[in-house]
Amino acid sequence: MKILSEAEIKELEKMSVLCRGDILKMTTLAGSGHPGGSMSSIDMYLTVYKIANISPDNYKELNRDRIIVSHGHTSPGVYSALGRNGFFDIDEAIAYFRLAGSIFEGHIERMVPGVEWTTGNLGQGLSAACGMALAAKHLGAEYGVYCFMGDGEQQKGQVSEARRFAVKYNLDNLIAFVDYNKLQISGNISEVMPQNIKDEYIASGWAVLEIDGHNIKEIADAIYQAKKIARPVLILAKTVMGKGVSFMENKEVYHGKPLNEEQLDAALKELGLENDLEKYKEMRKQFVFDESAHEIFRYEVAVDTGFPKTYGTDVSMDNRGVFGNAITELVQINMAENNTPIIVFDCDLAGSVKTDKVAKEFAENFYEAGIQEHHTAVCAGAASVNGLVSFFADFGVFGIDETYNQQRLNDINDTNLKVVTTHVGIDVGEDGKTHQCIDYIGAMRNLYGFKVIVPADPNQTDRAVRYAAKEYGNFLIAMGRSKVPVIADKEGRPYYGDDYEFKYGKIDVIRDGEIPLFSYGSMLHRAVKVYDIVSNQGVNLAVLNVSSPFKLDLEVLERFKDSKIWFTYEDHNVNTGLGSILADFIAENGCGVKLVKFGVKGYSYSGKPDHIFELIGLSPEAVAAEIVKNLK
Amino acid sequence: MKILSEAEIKELEKMSVLCRGDILKMTTLAGSGHPGGSMSSIDMYLTVYKIANISPDNYKELNRDRIIVSHGHTSPGVYSALGRNGFFDIDEAIAYFRLAGSIFEGHIERMVPGVEWTTGNLGQGLSAACGMALAAKHLGAEYGVYCFMGDGEQQKGQVSEARRFAVKYNLDNLIAFVDYNKLQISGNISEVMPQNIKDEYIASGWAVLEIDGHNIKEIADAIYQAKKIARPVLILAKTVMGKGVSFMENKEVYHGKPLNEEQLDAALKELGLENDLEKYKEMRKQFVFDESAHEIFRYEVAVDTGFPKTYGTDVSMDNRGVFGNAITELVQINMAENNTPIIVFDCDLAGSVKTDKVAKEFAENFYEAGIQEHHTAVCAGAASVNGLVSFFADFGVFGIDETYNQQRLNDINDTNLKVVTTHVGIDVGEDGKTHQCIDYIGAMRNLYGFKVIVPADPNQTDRAVRYAAKEYGNFLIAMGRSKVPVIADKEGRPYYGDDYEFKYGKIDVIRDGEIPLFSYGSMLHRAVKVYDIVSNQGVNLAVLNVSSPFKLDLEVLERFKDSKIWFTYEDHNVNTGLGSILADFIAENGCGVKLVKFGVKGYSYSGKPDHIFELIGLSPEAVAAEIVKNLK
Repeated sequence: MKILSEAEIKELEKMSVLCRGDILKMTTLAGSGHPGGSMSSIDMYLTVYKIANISPDNYKELNRDRIIVSHGHTSPGVYSALGRNGFFDIDEAIAYFRLAGSIFEGHIERMVPGVEWTTGNLGQGLSAACGMALAAKHLGAEYGVYCFMGDGEQQKGQVSEARRFAVKYNLDNLIAFVDYNKLQISGNISEVMPQNIKDEYIASGWAVLEIDGHNIKEIADAIYQAKKIARPVLILAKTVMGKGVSFMENKEVYHGKPLNEEQLDAALKELGLENDLEKYKEMRKQFVFDESAHEIFRYEVAVDTGFPKTYGTDVSMDNRGVFGNAITELVQINMAENNTPIIVFDCDLAGSVKTDKVAKEFAENFYEAGIQEHHTAVCAGAASVNGLVSFFADFGVFGIDETYNQQRLNDINDTNLKVVTTHVGIDVGEDGKTHQCIDYIGAMRNLYGFKVIVPADPNQTDRAVRYAAKEYGNFLIAMGRSKVPVIADKEGRPYYGDDYEFKYGKIDVIRDGEIPLFSYGSMLHRAVKVYDIVSNQGVNLAVLNVSSPFKLDLEVLERFKDSKIWFTYEDHNVNTGLGSILADFIAENGCGVKLVKFGVKGYSYSGKPDHIFELIGLSPEAVAAEIVKNLK
Repeated sequence: MKILSEAEIKELEKMSVLCRGDILKMTTLAGSGHPGGSMSSIDMYLTVYKIANISPDNYKELNRDRIIVSHGHTSPGVYSALGRNGFFDIDEAIAYFRLAGSIFEGHIERMVPGVEWTTGNLGQGLSAACGMALAAKHLGAEYGVYCFMGDGEQQKGQVSEARRFAVKYNLDNLIAFVDYNKLQISGNISEVMPQNIKDEYIASGWAVLEIDGHNIKEIADAIYQAKKIARPVLILAKTVMGKGVSFMENKEVYHGKPLNEEQLDAALKELGLENDLEKYKEMRKQFVFDESAHEIFRYEVAVDTGFPKTYGTDVSMDNRGVFGNAITELVQINMAENNTPIIVFDCDLAGSVKTDKVAKEFAENFYEAGIQEHHTAVCAGAASVNGLVSFFADFGVFGIDETYNQQRLNDINDTNLKVVTTHVGIDVGEDGKTHQCIDYIGAMRNLYGFKVIVPADPNQTDRAVRYAAKEYGNFLIAMGRSKVPVIADKEGRPYYGDDYEFKYGKIDVIRDGEIPLFSYGSMLHRAVKVYDIVSNQGVNLAVLNVSSPFKLDLEVLERFKDSKIWFTYEDHNVNTGLGSILADFIAENGCGVKLVKFGVKGYSYSGKPDHIFELIGLSPEAVAAEIVKNLK
């Protein structure tokens, strides 16, 4: 670790004046942004970017230190610190801040060189920092992680979850800062929501150092001291919002408001800087949009998918059990030297989501995060961008509904996270409506990057898990709780047999016919039952398995365009599931097909799935009867 | 408050043996459920139901005490305590537990007499208890609130948010219990996720009392003592999982696993109880489903909607400012004696979501909860079921995305919550993609109860806010950030003028014509621009305002069924917004219309909305050109 010389400290002090000028210019030019917090954090940013092992030369190397800024609205501060350290042309950051199409967005984002994590929704950064610190330990990498946070965001519950996780996994390679300027948008933090930040960290088992966050020597010394402490350290840094410009100091209005041009002029004078705003105004007019600048750097992954297993039609097994077998094998195989390691996160449900075998046999790849889903979703996502594959297995309502925004932010961060949710649909045992995740398609469909796979039986589950493990990107694999039969072809052989390879976006014709019944997941075997029933009544039904509802197999759909009626059958909210996706296809193609959707029409009951299906008209018998009625 | 006599304590001790038998019978009979925690909590449940002012006679009266059970999986314990106290026939609870269609669901739900809040997703109960305690203080009601929690769920960050809120608002009418049996599903809590529960509560400013949770006298004494402490009190109760049956004690396997029949027999013998399982087996076979038993009790609301305000076409105002004016007036008017009070919750964004006027002028109706959205969503929802109207105003990404599951649970709880989100769509200022809530329709469409209104201009906003205030139930009112023009009719008068009354589910024909362009919210005035452009090119467009996207106006849609092509125009995810809803209509009716959707196709940029629309092909000019092209 670099030890700062007196001369270097002086240099940083000078640079911090320049940065304050940058911050003020870019916010005034954009007409919006957050100068106040940027100016209270900037001395810490500069000191850490100086001390940490990260530079324009190594910022894609695995062993660089990671700097996470949780209060992403201090983007002007981050951009000025990075720009002044040569990560990009500072003039571009000033000129293009908050300009549509520029990478210098209102909140920091990962495509900016040197930015490790897209933040802005508060309270997420410490979890991301934990994920990166954990990845370092898991990979045996030498890097450290610095995490900057605001004081207001300490109120977010997720921060308390992250604190505990950091202590449990002894993330002593993590140093966190709180920019303790004591102001949030609505005023003094102790009036908005009284909180004893120091005591809370201590109660969680952290070491806390208190410093003046504008004194570069104190900041540096605290870092040296923190490095020697064998547990997570919080540096609680007393600062002044708007620091450096007399009329801005301690004014919460400058949390989210820029100076006007006249005020800017006065501020730059006070800082002893030239007012060159006109130059940036000109530059801003000349901005050229470049889509490719928005691409996010990815580490390559090399995952061995192991040996697909075919379960015979005599087997009745739950898909989650199959997932458990597959993930255990994948974890083991990919411990090999040139493979990408796979790690597994749990929120106190390993026995139910079947990652307990990993926990037992490969404990070092298993992270038990307790009942802390918000933290875990972010931590698992952040770990995965460091040359790892993260699996996060949970019940649907926790891994999707409870953590919906965390998954959205993972998606924006282009993580390599595999969310595996069991207990989706009505098939959650008898836990009742609060635990019935009947919106997993409807919720995830809002996210542009996530791929969703809903395998129908043990054989498809086995292949889907292996497929998702090896493909970079965010996946949701969703499954119910109960045992399901192996889907068989008409000859009684496993439909997804030895030679089956999972293809994302392929619709499988399980039973051929004229009138399509689309289904998936644990309803597919019920759809086959429907087929059996209506076939006896002379209906020429086809049963189609749409295991990748977000990518439709146009070839198969085209085949059925001339069928006047289509049916969908799912234990999902009828308004937002596969039926709705196919409705889009029908309407956008204007093909005049009439769609009849069988799905869940209201919050449901607590009981055995088959019993509930009877109550809500979704039993195979009821659906078969409705189909026959519709065809009359 | 009742003081328990020695005789009463003895009676409770006897009753607790009966309850343990009930718990074991119902879980064995159902073949699933959570006996372990039920048996560690049961002595506390019985003591509190005895001491608290709640009974079968008064459980719908406003002044009853509220008992919230956060770890809703201890439903067997709650049902046995309520049943043995006469809230319903205990035999029915035992016989019908977890039977599809029965009210005795796997996790406790509000339709069960005596159950105040549907729980099961952990970490939510303390927030609900805060909401009820706050409601008591606000209404000047005398009731107290008891909240039971598990120890594992203390890990959830939301609990830390609730703790702070309780201290800030001095909820000394709230007594919380932690059932400290030290076991969660995965094992010992200090191994799963080390946490110092006592120190954390103390750091938050709570008083903590430690007791033996199986000693009824100690439990009662702690309650008496807590009542005298002028701040929130936690009773940390040491307990034993599976208490009362030797072979179940301290075994985490019994967290979520029932005894088999043989084990049950042994357990009942140990408890000195008769094994009458056969009787319940018979009863279970005779269960008759009654939908009406699932209805949730509501307090009537009487809200004065005040004086609708018409803004002239010379006005350019943001809808959020109009909301701010309307809510301030509504709060004031409904302070009148016979009206239902309106309270407003904020998460440090009052200045942006425009509830700051309420904060200034009617501070006693304004609750500032800090950056604690999870807690706030639940607290606001729970407050609203006590004869209040709660408004929770926030940015879209926080009031919807971050709190999606909390809103889902509010919906299941049939609350009377009005979520008002500003900064939805692309129109969030220059905050960038993390702050662009382009999924508000797509997310909320998964919830069966929430009504969604997206008003188009100041006049519609004013009416919509007043409408939602007076109707019982959950509403989302969504609006962008920018100023929008008043929508005018062809003669230049305000379309939503003095005589306009908001009707939920009405589609307004803003411009009549043959080919429909459906839009809403802050895109509507852009749709009118599109109309102006294409009209000059001879296209006979109609512009339709779908302000209630979840309830379609069939009369209007029928009129356009013969148009071969429909267009939708929204700054929402194109896959999950209004376009998708209309696609459903088209497909389900098989009407052969071709739908062309203009919407957001990927995470977007940070910049001024109009500038972003240009970049992503959603400017009125671009849309007009596409429409013309499609009609060729």
